Amino acid sequence: MKKNQKKVLPGILFLAAATFMLVLASPLTADEGMWTLDNPPVKQWKEKYGFEPTQAWLDHIRLASVRSNDGGSGSFVSPNGLVLTNHHVALGQLQKVSTAEKNYVANGFYAATAAEELPCPDLELNVLISMENVTARINAAVKPGMDAIKANKAKKAVIAAIERKSLKKTGLRSDVVALYQGGEYWLYRYKKYTDVKLVFAPEQQAAFFGGDSDNFTYPRHDLDMALFRAYEKGKPAHVKHYLKWSANGAADGELVFISGNPGSTNRLLTLTQLQFQREFTYPVRLKLMKRMLAVAKKYAMQGMEQARQAAGIIFGIENGLKVSSGELDGMKAPGFMEKKAASEAEFRKMIESNPKWKDAYADAWDQIAQAIEKLKPRQSEFTFRRVPGLRLGRIAQQIVRYVAEIRKPDGQRLQGYHDSQLESLRFRLFSPAPIYLGLEEALLIDGMKQEIEELGADDPFVKILLDGKTPEEAAKALLAGTQLTDPALRRKLVDGGEAAVAKCNDSFIVLARKLDPIMREMIKWQEDNIESIVRPAGEKIGQARFAIYGKNAYPDATFTLRLSYGTVMGYPMNGTIAPYKTTFYGLFDRAASFDNKPPFNLPRRVAAARDKLDLSTPLNFVCSGDIIGGNSGSPVINKAGEVVGLVFDGNIESFVGRFFYDDTANRTVSVHSAAIIEAMKNIYGAEKLVQEILGK
Amino acid sequence: MKKNQKKVLPGILFLAAATFMLVLASPLTADEGMWTLDNPPVKQWKEKYGFEPTQAWLDHIRLASVRSNDGGSGSFVSPNGLVLTNHHVALGQLQKVSTAEKNYVANGFYAATAAEELPCPDLELNVLISMENVTARINAAVKPGMDAIKANKAKKAVIAAIERKSLKKTGLRSDVVALYQGGEYWLYRYKKYTDVKLVFAPEQQAAFFGGDSDNFTYPRHDLDMALFRAYEKGKPAHVKHYLKWSANGAADGELVFISGNPGSTNRLLTLTQLQFQREFTYPVRLKLMKRMLAVAKKYAMQGMEQARQAAGIIFGIENGLKVSSGELDGMKAPGFMEKKAASEAEFRKMIESNPKWKDAYADAWDQIAQAIEKLKPRQSEFTFRRVPGLRLGRIAQQIVRYVAEIRKPDGQRLQGYHDSQLESLRFRLFSPAPIYLGLEEALLIDGMKQEIEELGADDPFVKILLDGKTPEEAAKALLAGTQLTDPALRRKLVDGGEAAVAKCNDSFIVLARKLDPIMREMIKWQEDNIESIVRPAGEKIGQARFAIYGKNAYPDATFTLRLSYGTVMGYPMNGTIAPYKTTFYGLFDRAASFDNKPPFNLPRRVAAARDKLDLSTPLNFVCSGDIIGGNSGSPVINKAGEVVGLVFDGNIESFVGRFFYDDTANRTVSVHSAAIIEAMKNIYGAEKLVQEILGK
Repeated sequence: MKKNQKKVLPGILFLAAATFMLVLASPLTADEGMWTLDNPPVKQWKEKYGFEPTQAWLDHIRLASVRSNDGGSGSFVSPNGLVLTNHHVALGQLQKVSTAEKNYVANGFYAATAAEELPCPDLELNVLISMENVTARINAAVKPGMDAIKANKAKKAVIAAIERKSLKKTGLRSDVVALYQGGEYWLYRYKKYTDVKLVFAPEQQAAFFGGDSDNFTYPRHDLDMALFRAYEKGKPAHVKHYLKWSANGAADGELVFISGNPGSTNRLLTLTQLQFQREFTYPVRLKLMKRMLAVAKKYAMQGMEQARQAAGIIFGIENGLKVSSGELDGMKAPGFMEKKAASEAEFRKMIESNPKWKDAYADAWDQIAQAIEKLKPRQSEFTFRRVPGLRLGRIAQQIVRYVAEIRKPDGQRLQGYHDSQLESLRFRLFSPAPIYLGLEEALLIDGMKQEIEELGADDPFVKILLDGKTPEEAAKALLAGTQLTDPALRRKLVDGGEAAVAKCNDSFIVLARKLDPIMREMIKWQEDNIESIVRPAGEKIGQARFAIYGKNAYPDATFTLRLSYGTVMGYPMNGTIAPYKTTFYGLFDRAASFDNKPPFNLPRRVAAARDKLDLSTPLNFVCSGDIIGGNSGSPVINKAGEVVGLVFDGNIESFVGRFFYDDTANRTVSVHSAAIIEAMKNIYGAEKLVQEILGK
Repeated sequence: MKKNQKKVLPGILFLAAATFMLVLASPLTADEGMWTLDNPPVKQWKEKYGFEPTQAWLDHIRLASVRSNDGGSGSFVSPNGLVLTNHHVALGQLQKVSTAEKNYVANGFYAATAAEELPCPDLELNVLISMENVTARINAAVKPGMDAIKANKAKKAVIAAIERKSLKKTGLRSDVVALYQGGEYWLYRYKKYTDVKLVFAPEQQAAFFGGDSDNFTYPRHDLDMALFRAYEKGKPAHVKHYLKWSANGAADGELVFISGNPGSTNRLLTLTQLQFQREFTYPVRLKLMKRMLAVAKKYAMQGMEQARQAAGIIFGIENGLKVSSGELDGMKAPGFMEKKAASEAEFRKMIESNPKWKDAYADAWDQIAQAIEKLKPRQSEFTFRRVPGLRLGRIAQQIVRYVAEIRKPDGQRLQGYHDSQLESLRFRLFSPAPIYLGLEEALLIDGMKQEIEELGADDPFVKILLDGKTPEEAAKALLAGTQLTDPALRRKLVDGGEAAVAKCNDSFIVLARKLDPIMREMIKWQEDNIESIVRPAGEKIGQARFAIYGKNAYPDATFTLRLSYGTVMGYPMNGTIAPYKTTFYGLFDRAASFDNKPPFNLPRRVAAARDKLDLSTPLNFVCSGDIIGGNSGSPVINKAGEVVGLVFDGNIESFVGRFFYDDTANRTVSVHSAAIIEAMKNIYGAEKLVQEILGK
């Protein structure tokens, strides 16, 4: 499940982020759900599978699970801090440690000795150490008589306070998470690892065999894996909780668990919210992405080095495009909205039938609908007012905001700039990862052109951005006048505070300063007019569900740790049956079927290893576990808590999983644990790592 | 493209057969069409592919093509009468020459020497020798002032006369074929081969790997081939026109041709006809088939020998079920009928716009609609009034009719009993192929039960059928009292004429005699009330299309020789791309992916040959050529007239091909010519045959 769509286009997912997630309307069927660790579906497991985990089993899984700030998941697989995740989760770091001379994305990487392990510039790994229900404390912040705007602010302030206090007390990363769209608030504390080294990755062509064509499909033949090692105090982290390796790996019909961090689901947005997404959010997102993709591809055509530089962003956009197109198709499918409308009508009817419920909850839907109507005329601004390009515009904006925000009391700051968030923010902001000016320029120019088209040349934001120049001139001037590629300058500006930033004449900083008032007006308008309405309305709906259905449900995904479960099994596909697994035979078949043409060309090392490989070794497999983007890199675990696979994708039928779960054909696609061992041994000669993983 | 659905259930396709086929409404796009050999789409070939065949090329292809009375196609592939077709086309004969001791279906067959070649009991092969347009002669039979019933009879009489005269004059099988649903009538003359021997067939598990699950799907891994040899005067037929073998076989993007006999298409039935099929014909057909399948499967469960006996019929029904379900789904798909309604409305509007056209053609649609209304109340009788079982009831009915019909002037006989048709009829009627009484009994009993349910115990047909007994008793009595399993008795009855049949007390003959008046009333009613209306109305629509669009079109399929063409190419599938070919690697993968469980178990000999095989050899491939059931066994030919493949199926997306052609995903699935050689050489050791095919 590719995960970096959000990072590519931070602006346009705005509404999805602002309108919180809702809990389930109806009783669960099948292997549904992304369950929080405090409320696993033990009853379902016991009834359907006769499995009852101990608290120690649950704790062990949780403490062996890892979240990556690159938007994916992972797990410890050795006592020496070895972390297993996907190649595509590692892709960002692989790209950042590569150079024109050493292309680890294209050629793979293997550190045969500790000395060869390669430091990652800005990878942060989190382990969820504790969870604490803080709902009551947050709700207590809202005093009788407060209006919506004040109530919203009060809640935000207390959340920041809880996080700050926790950080101070424990030294752990402390995030308050809204679950059941505010039906519950939890304080999650994480141990952080920021000294992380790259240990192993196959060449991208083995990890992502079949490329964008095969992405999100099954049967599949990808060795989408990578290994990092977490360090502490300069030494491999000694971890007590790591997952042992299963001797045989996933078997047909087996019960398995997935421990990871699903990013977001929209399973219970209201009908109006979904309609707005279908009619506006998605089409605009696709428009933006297609245009960015065209620019990145054109850039990549200029030469080998340009292709290398653009590889990550092209992967990310293509991935996002395929997801978003699939999700939009799902929303447009006959019956989709009708089904949604019917289930919402039924729920609302139940609420109307009880005077107490009616009084407490019934107006939530209309409030959300009104907020959306209010948003519509400004939605273009929220979508397109952005400094185009990949990193420089964003870095400058963050620096300008940083120095302003930290002067305020913590509770009044913008989201992202609270005390508890600063360390992670600085870690990324000061990253030494390279910035490719050619690519930035291409995206800047075309992005500005698009903004002129969409917003008009007279839009105040666009006017400042262009500064009276053509997009080409403006981009050239911006890039000529910046030194922000140097992390030391960024650090100097942040450390120098408002004074340093105010007198800085770096072109991007100057631009960010000029644009900041416009952006702040938008944020404030959004908080006061949309968030302060939609958030409590969503909470009402969540509370209504608690009132009617109890807590026998899971919250929508929030990129926090969840446990999914399911059965290893094929499904009806294309008039026949998709098998529960694929094999290395299938990899060789698919390459030969396309006459070895890209993206189906067999990597050289794989072809060379043909006679050493047992071609009947399972390569990928599917299970009915319920996942979504963010789950990439999650371990698939058997009842004994052993690794039987590595989640890397959903099948094409899983796109509608954002909106509802249907186990008929919705499948999680994973690398089989046997494939990892077979490949590392017989293709990559990484025998030593194999021994470490197998605990030998 | 499996072809024996019609044979399993002859009655229920009645309306499709009675309502003739229509020609194309709109200009052709893509690689569409099943073209008659007198009117190949040379213009399209030239424009799109720069290919212009000579008349000699066309004649050669035609004369090397073979039609099988088992409902499939084939081609000569050596000067010594070797005929290449599908395993599933050969299945009927394989079943008939097998015994409990020698199961050639399960184990395959190879005659290493001429002496070992195995005579087929009732296989007739036809080669289309000449085609003659006889439209004017047939239309001249209808005199001014004739009413519909008389006109219908007059036409039938002249058709029979033309066929009889031609047979007498040339000794060739002579069939008048209505093309463009009577817009044209052609006299097709065929050379017949009835002395045919089985030469080679792989085990069914290799030919039909993946079974019913993979049937009509792609990617596919079937070695669906068999070889017969035509004999003349006791010696291998020496044929001048046979297809040479391509050195490399089908390549990606190559232009290819398919020469074969598509059975029937419904591309331009009227909206009312399609609606009738969707609402009645198909659901009833599915009901019948599902029930027969359940009975046959239950019978097969009784033991190895029962399973062997029922294998053919189970294959046939499963195949038909998958087709019919797919076609019904196609008709039920959103937009299908709307699209049909719109195109029909447009066509009728054009007719209305021209007073001459309006006068000549405009009433055809209402006439067809009225005939269907008339049919509806009797449709249950037409569907269910049949002697159940596979062969005995039908044999008895044919004998009873035969002796009565041949006493009439040829022009007045029932269809199937004209002089020109008798030889082929007798060939099948006197076939020594075994009849399995246990299977007949099971189907008889359940069929009678179903007729009671559907028609009521008081239906006159049902009353005669049951003769006051329970279905179990009636079936037992019928089977105890028959000797029709003996071909000699059948011959004796036919040769003895009406007198012999009248005094015969064989239980099935007695039953057929009693039922005959009821059946004849139905046939007459149908001819007078439906056929005599629908046929000329269909002709009007066909003529209207000629008037408006000219003859730049192909007629609907009629199980006569057609040339299709297309490009070897993959297609978008399941979110990715289906490759243009599969390989032996894929066969091993699919077996391993299902842990070698049926129907995905690798045949023993294939598994044993693993290291001898070049696993990258192409196994199956797809092209955009336009085919349908009946095309099974057609050669796929390159521009040089060489065999590059062997048609055996359509993909799941081709089901709607019965109603319209869309080259986006409609694909013909073929065995690659290289797979045939590789397998015969390295799996089956049939080196001698390989040499014959390669012309060495």
